[in-house]
Amino acid sequence: MHALKVTRAEDFPEWYQAVVREADLAELSPTRGSMIIKPWGYGIWERIQSELDRRIKETGHENYYFPLLIPLSFIAKEADHVEGFAKEMAVVTHHRLKAIDGVLKPDPEAELAEPFIIRPTSETIIGDAFSRWIKSYRDLPLKLNQWANVMRWEMRTRMFLRTAEFLWQEGHTAHVDEADAMDETMLALEIYRSFAEDFLAIPVVAGEKPENERFPGAVRTYSIEAMMQDGKALQAGTSHYLGTHFAEAQNIRYQDKDGAQTLAHTTSWGVSTRLIGGVIMTHGDDDGLRTPPAVAPRQIVIVPMLRGKPEDADLKAYCAALAKELGALTVFGSGLRAFVDVKDAKPADKRWDWVRRGAPLICEIGPRDAANGQVTFIKRNALREGEKIKSHTLARADFVAQARQLLEAMQAELFAEAKTRLEANIRADFETFADLERHYGTEDKEGEFKGWVRVCWSRPTGAALEEVGERLKALKLTIRNAPLAQPAAFGKCVFTGAPAVEEILIARAY
Amino acid sequence: MHALKVTRAEDFPEWYQAVVREADLAELSPTRGSMIIKPWGYGIWERIQSELDRRIKETGHENYYFPLLIPLSFIAKEADHVEGFAKEMAVVTHHRLKAIDGVLKPDPEAELAEPFIIRPTSETIIGDAFSRWIKSYRDLPLKLNQWANVMRWEMRTRMFLRTAEFLWQEGHTAHVDEADAMDETMLALEIYRSFAEDFLAIPVVAGEKPENERFPGAVRTYSIEAMMQDGKALQAGTSHYLGTHFAEAQNIRYQDKDGAQTLAHTTSWGVSTRLIGGVIMTHGDDDGLRTPPAVAPRQIVIVPMLRGKPEDADLKAYCAALAKELGALTVFGSGLRAFVDVKDAKPADKRWDWVRRGAPLICEIGPRDAANGQVTFIKRNALREGEKIKSHTLARADFVAQARQLLEAMQAELFAEAKTRLEANIRADFETFADLERHYGTEDKEGEFKGWVRVCWSRPTGAALEEVGERLKALKLTIRNAPLAQPAAFGKCVFTGAPAVEEILIARAY
Repeated sequence: MHALKVTRAEDFPEWYQAVVREADLAELSPTRGSMIIKPWGYGIWERIQSELDRRIKETGHENYYFPLLIPLSFIAKEADHVEGFAKEMAVVTHHRLKAIDGVLKPDPEAELAEPFIIRPTSETIIGDAFSRWIKSYRDLPLKLNQWANVMRWEMRTRMFLRTAEFLWQEGHTAHVDEADAMDETMLALEIYRSFAEDFLAIPVVAGEKPENERFPGAVRTYSIEAMMQDGKALQAGTSHYLGTHFAEAQNIRYQDKDGAQTLAHTTSWGVSTRLIGGVIMTHGDDDGLRTPPAVAPRQIVIVPMLRGKPEDADLKAYCAALAKELGALTVFGSGLRAFVDVKDAKPADKRWDWVRRGAPLICEIGPRDAANGQVTFIKRNALREGEKIKSHTLARADFVAQARQLLEAMQAELFAEAKTRLEANIRADFETFADLERHYGTEDKEGEFKGWVRVCWSRPTGAALEEVGERLKALKLTIRNAPLAQPAAFGKCVFTGAPAVEEILIARAY
Repeated sequence: MHALKVTRAEDFPEWYQAVVREADLAELSPTRGSMIIKPWGYGIWERIQSELDRRIKETGHENYYFPLLIPLSFIAKEADHVEGFAKEMAVVTHHRLKAIDGVLKPDPEAELAEPFIIRPTSETIIGDAFSRWIKSYRDLPLKLNQWANVMRWEMRTRMFLRTAEFLWQEGHTAHVDEADAMDETMLALEIYRSFAEDFLAIPVVAGEKPENERFPGAVRTYSIEAMMQDGKALQAGTSHYLGTHFAEAQNIRYQDKDGAQTLAHTTSWGVSTRLIGGVIMTHGDDDGLRTPPAVAPRQIVIVPMLRGKPEDADLKAYCAALAKELGALTVFGSGLRAFVDVKDAKPADKRWDWVRRGAPLICEIGPRDAANGQVTFIKRNALREGEKIKSHTLARADFVAQARQLLEAMQAELFAEAKTRLEANIRADFETFADLERHYGTEDKEGEFKGWVRVCWSRPTGAALEEVGERLKALKLTIRNAPLAQPAAFGKCVFTGAPAVEEILIARAY
C-alpha cells in the first residue's frame, strides 16, 4: 500500500497528475490551459528563483522588467521567429468592455489600431531597447535578465510541463562578436547544468540541439536534458546564440573601436516552472513527491502528536523550541526551514500530507519523546523498510547537531539515485536504424520504459535532416542534443551509414 | 548648480520625470502606457518585495499564483466591480496570428468563444477558487497572497504612479464573519503603515476612505496616504473589507459549527510599484533620488579614483577588500550591500551617477586614501554644505565600524525630515467651505505647495456625498481618508454646518 492510488509502474501519466494533486502543488484553473500554483508548488518556485537569481547576478547580469504586451509589428520583424511563434499567441485587440444588449462584450469603439500580443518570449521588445541603448563598444556586453510570466497558446496542456501561461526567467545579452556571445551562451548553459544538478538534484546532459530543434531565430541552441522515471527526456533549460539575426531585424549596432557601425551578437536563455515537473518526475515515488532538501519550502516538519489533552501544551512548547533551534542553523547557504504543524487535524493525516508533499524530514513527536528529550523522525527518501514505515530516534541534541548533515546527505542520495538511473539507461550499442526500430518499435504497452540511446550520425542538414526527423517521428523519437563531451573518433551514421562526425542522444520526450 | 537640470521648485512634474530618467529607474516603452523598469528601479522593487513578503508570510499568509487571464463571465458577476473596472481592461479575443495579404493579423478562425481579460485585480478568479476550496469553518481563515503583474488601460500615464501594466502584491482572504475579516483588513493596513514608515521612510496617515472612494465591490476601504514634496497626497496602499459581496457573487459558503451553509466574509489588499513613485517624491532632491538605505539596491558604493596607471591595481585591491569587509556586516536585517564601481568611465562621472541614483554612502577612494588606510565619503542625504559637496574622511577601521550606524542614522533622518514636512503641512483650522475655497481656489501657479487640510464633516452619503465630491472637485480636491486616530468630540461639518461626526483629510492627489 502506498500513499498514492496509482503507482508509476501502473500508469506514469496518471501518477504524475496524482502527485501534482496530492502534494498540493497546483491545480487546473477555469482559464483553459493555465494553472493555479499552490503554496507547496509556489514555494519550490520561490526557492528556484532565489538561488538561480543569485547565480545569475553573480555572473554579471542585472534584472529588468519589460512590458507584458508586445506590439504586433515587433513580432513580425524576425521571420523565423514569427514563423515559430505566431501560431500560438494570445492577441489583445480591445481595451474596454461594454454592455451590449445586457451582455458584456469587447467595446467595438475601443478596438486597438495595432493589436498587442502577450509575450511568448521577449527577444523582440528587448531587442528594440538594445537598439536604443547600445551606441558604442563601451556599452557591451549588455547582460540582463527578467523574471516574468509568458504565454503560448498550447492546445494540449499538462501541469508544469506545458501550460498556456507559465513563469520563467529569460536572460538576454548583447556582445561585440561571436566569440564573446558564444562564451555567454555556454556560461548560461553551465549555470543551468550546475543549478539543476547541485540544487534540484537532477542530473542532466548538456549539449547542442540539431538544426531542426533550434529556437526560432537562433543560430545555435543548447539544452540540458534530464531523464524522467519513465525513461523519457525533459528539456529542462535552453541557451541560444542568436548570431546577428535579431540585431539585423532590430538594428542593434554599435560603433566599434575603429569607428565603424557594427552589428551586435545576441543571446537568450531561459528556464521555467517546467523545472518543477522535472523535480516531480525525477524524485517522486509511489508515496508522492520527494522534494530535494535544497529546494523544499519546509525542510523539517514537526508534527506534535496532540490528543486534545492538557499535556498538549508541553508538547507544543517542546516542538516550538526544537523548531527554533533548527531554524537557527544554516544549510545549502540559507537558514534551515523548520515548521511545526499544529493544524487541527489527526497526526496520522498530517504525517501523510507531508509524506505526499515530500518534506525531507518529518518528525513525529509524542509525549514520550518530549519527556525523554528525543526526536523520532522519518526520512522521506528512505521512507520504508519493506512495506513498513521506517522511523528513527535520536537524542534531541544529536538530531539538531546532525540535521544539516541529514539534509545534505539526502540531497546527495537523491542525486546519486537519479544519476545512476540516467547512466544505466543510455544505450550506446546501436549502430543502425534497424537497432532503433527493434528497440522502440515494439512496445508492449504505452509508457514502457525504453530509456535513451546515444548514436553516431553524420549531421545531415536541410531536407536530409527533415527525412531523419520523419523516420524518428514514426518511432515517436526526437534528437535531444549532441552532448558537449564527444569522443575523439566516430563510427558510421546510424541513419545513412556514412562516416559520422558526432554523437547524439535520441529519446522520447516531454 | 544641481545635478538635475530642473528643480522641484521650478517644475515638480518635470523634476519627477528627470529623476526617473537621471537615476536610471525606468523609461517609457514602445507599448503605450507601459514602462521598462531598469536595474536601479527594479532593485528597489526587489527590496520591497523581499521585505514585504517576509512580513506577509510572518502574519500567516501563503503565496499562490493565479492565471493572468480571467474569463469575461467572471468579471461580470459582481456588479459594482464590473462597473469600476470594465472601462479600462485589455481584452484578449484571438489566440493566433495569420498573414493575410502579407500582413500579420489576428486569425479570424482563431477567435475565442469567450474573450479573456488581463487581470486588473484578481478578486473574481481567486473568489472562484475560494468557492471550491472552502467547505467548512475548519478551512477558515484562508489567507493568501500573490505577486503579479496587472493591467488597467489608463489613458494618462505617469511612470510608476499610473501605468497600464504595473507590478503589485495582492492579498486575498476569507473568514467566518465580519469581525475576523475586519481584523484582517486592519492587520494588512498596519503591515502597510509600518512597512512604509520603517522601510521606505515614508510617513503616512492610515484611515478609512469615504463611500465614494471605495474599491468597486468593497464595504469598507482603508488607505495609507503619504504627502509628496509638492504637497499632494499619494495613496500608497489600500486594504478592503469586501463583506459578503464577492462571496454572494461567487457562492463562497462554508458549513459552520452548527452545520448551516454560511457566506464567508472576504478581504483584499495591495501595494504596487507605485510605492517607488512615493519614494521618489518623498525623498528626492534637486540632485536626484535619495534612496532610503533600507531599500537601496547598493547601500555603499565605492568609486576608486583610477588614472589608468600601474598604481590602479593597488587601489582596486584596497577597494575590493573594503567592500568585502562591509559586505560581511548586517544592516536592516540583511547583508550590507557594498559595491565597487570599476566601470570604464571618469571617477567624477561615476560619482554623479551615484548621486543621481541616490546611493546612500558614496566613497571616493584615491591613492592617498589607500596609502593612509582611510575612507573619504559623501552622505547622500547631506550632500552639500552651501553649494559645495561635503565630504568626510574616517580611518578605514572606523568607517567599517560605523557603517551600519551611518546607514541607520540616514534612514532615520530621511524619515524625520518627511515626518516634519507632513506634520507641518496639515492645516486643521478650517471651519467652512469658504476657508477651503480661499486656500485652494487662488493659485498663483500650477503646482504651488498647498498641503492638506483636516476638517470635520457629518459624513453625508449618496447624493449628498456626490454633491460634496463635486464641490471639492471644482477645487481639484478629494477626500483622502478619515484617519484612524479621531478626537473625542467634533465641531461642525465644513460642508453643511451640521454637527460633525468625523475628521477627514482633504488634499490634491496623484
